[in-house]
Amino acid sequence: MTRQQQGIHRKVTLRDIARATGFSINTVSHALKDKSDISAATRVLIRQSAEDLGYIADSVAGSLRSGVSSTIAVILGDMSNPHFGQWVREIETAAFQKGYSTIIISTDEDEEVECAGIKTAIGKRVDGIILCPTQYSMNNLDLLKSTGIPFVLLGRRWEDPAINYVVPDDIQGGSIAANYLLDQGCRHILMLNGPSHISSACERLEGYYQAHKEKGLAVDPRYIRHIGIKSAQCRNVLEQVLDEKLPFDGVLAFSDLLALEAITVLQDSHRFNGRIPVAGFDNILEDLILPVSLVSVTSDEGSAASHAADILFSLMANKSNENAAPPISPTQKVLRVRLAQHAHSW
Amino acid sequence: MTRQQQGIHRKVTLRDIARATGFSINTVSHALKDKSDISAATRVLIRQSAEDLGYIADSVAGSLRSGVSSTIAVILGDMSNPHFGQWVREIETAAFQKGYSTIIISTDEDEEVECAGIKTAIGKRVDGIILCPTQYSMNNLDLLKSTGIPFVLLGRRWEDPAINYVVPDDIQGGSIAANYLLDQGCRHILMLNGPSHISSACERLEGYYQAHKEKGLAVDPRYIRHIGIKSAQCRNVLEQVLDEKLPFDGVLAFSDLLALEAITVLQDSHRFNGRIPVAGFDNILEDLILPVSLVSVTSDEGSAASHAADILFSLMANKSNENAAPPISPTQKVLRVRLAQHAHSW
Repeated sequence: MTRQQQGIHRKVTLRDIARATGFSINTVSHALKDKSDISAATRVLIRQSAEDLGYIADSVAGSLRSGVSSTIAVILGDMSNPHFGQWVREIETAAFQKGYSTIIISTDEDEEVECAGIKTAIGKRVDGIILCPTQYSMNNLDLLKSTGIPFVLLGRRWEDPAINYVVPDDIQGGSIAANYLLDQGCRHILMLNGPSHISSACERLEGYYQAHKEKGLAVDPRYIRHIGIKSAQCRNVLEQVLDEKLPFDGVLAFSDLLALEAITVLQDSHRFNGRIPVAGFDNILEDLILPVSLVSVTSDEGSAASHAADILFSLMANKSNENAAPPISPTQKVLRVRLAQHAHSW
Repeated sequence: MTRQQQGIHRKVTLRDIARATGFSINTVSHALKDKSDISAATRVLIRQSAEDLGYIADSVAGSLRSGVSSTIAVILGDMSNPHFGQWVREIETAAFQKGYSTIIISTDEDEEVECAGIKTAIGKRVDGIILCPTQYSMNNLDLLKSTGIPFVLLGRRWEDPAINYVVPDDIQGGSIAANYLLDQGCRHILMLNGPSHISSACERLEGYYQAHKEKGLAVDPRYIRHIGIKSAQCRNVLEQVLDEKLPFDGVLAFSDLLALEAITVLQDSHRFNGRIPVAGFDNILEDLILPVSLVSVTSDEGSAASHAADILFSLMANKSNENAAPPISPTQKVLRVRLAQHAHSW
């Protein structure tokens, strides 16, 4: 009766494979690493034996020797938000295809949690980090920079020439979304924006102003409202607007999530008659099929998350290549955007 | 000018802290581990110095010594699916609070990807795994069992007395959802079920049959349709049903995601008049505020993902406690369910 059959679980080691094949542990080790000092026939034999025995390479010990953990971290607000979930999925898939694992850390948009998350990632010796920063301050960015670990900001940025980031063109996004609503005849567009300490919220608002200015229209600041980044805070703000009896004929929301919540509140409200055009950001209805009509700003150059993953892996390759000449200059991508229309009526 | 100011990034080591404080490396190491052979005053002094210098504990080297990686893996279909995203978020938060990191691996409901994912997790020496299995065969379950790593199945199960799992009571769920629709007067309920190799799909269908049987109603098998677990495959199936002119007056969907897609297709369809009751599973509208009316089966005993995390951490604690007596018997939780109603009209 083998140990396995007895229910005693033990990891298969190089020693087990050496014993089974009659080769030395050193030969087995080199064969499994495909080193050229072992003949092809021996490599095949040893690999087959390893597979038969159920050997699984241990990447932790290897990582201590090589300094490469084959792990990246994705740190962002809340991955149960479908927009973030789509990002994480794209990054995780890209990483997995390259043999990397992905650690995820939700910051809940809390700067202290973000700091703890960054420290955890560093302690795990991750090879790279993709961060959607909370942006309350630059403290955590400074911490990240001090470690020398390659990192890319995703979705939010600072105007710092030394950092890598991928963002959609949020000024253009705010502008084309506002222009769409203005072209629909809206003249009082309620902007349900994100918090003003976040770069994307500032830039989307700038686009909103720009669109009005180009058409020679004034913006009444009462139509600009800021909502926390987390869901379910939209209802209070919108009901407040309805209570104030502020008339509006279109809604520009910081995200599709907020836009969908706004549509729900407006539909529930008996004080509001008629349906009005609504625009959001992130195009989450691309993957999530919902019975609503919504126009959404989305990248016209592929997913921002995929771009961020590509940049991160380039940075990591550059770092591990000791012969590399001077470090490459930071990659800062501002993706062209377009409007996606989803018309299933609401 | 310090190295940091020169832009030369180097990790702060125990040696740096020893140099700064005048204590030996050994004393610094013990102080940072809160060992009792170092006085409280010295521990405070050394910890303060470590913080000032920006020291971050390295958990990889520690993990090699202790055999504990402080990492768990969550392996499931696709985390961009909001239902899975909510699960992952709950597990990640529970793990983070206990000082554990979470690696995520999407299987895309592909058995080979699942196998590669499990091997990756093992190679990373994760301390535990939560798996929503693809269930095409038991091969990957056998692989997991052979490793001795604690694991818990989430959302799907096998009738194996030796494994830990948490599932909602899917038979009861299928039954209460079907009963709800029958009570609404529906007599031809279209069941848009998941694939039949998945335990939850089988059990939900069993509940559907049970509800009909209890009311003395026959089930016409033409009303049972199976749809792949991934989104966007619902439209074809539903349009086929509409083409067949099979009359139905209610829809019971395997998931809220499918239910929302069904509502969208029905709304788009000009061949279908009137709105009909729709029920789904997973209660994703708890977090996602949408302008639709949907009834959804959900746990009445807290989130299945949180239960799975609790069980996993118990198993891990039990495993690492060498004085523990006999291994605890497997925990198999079947959570009581209830119906959640979301009424925003569609």
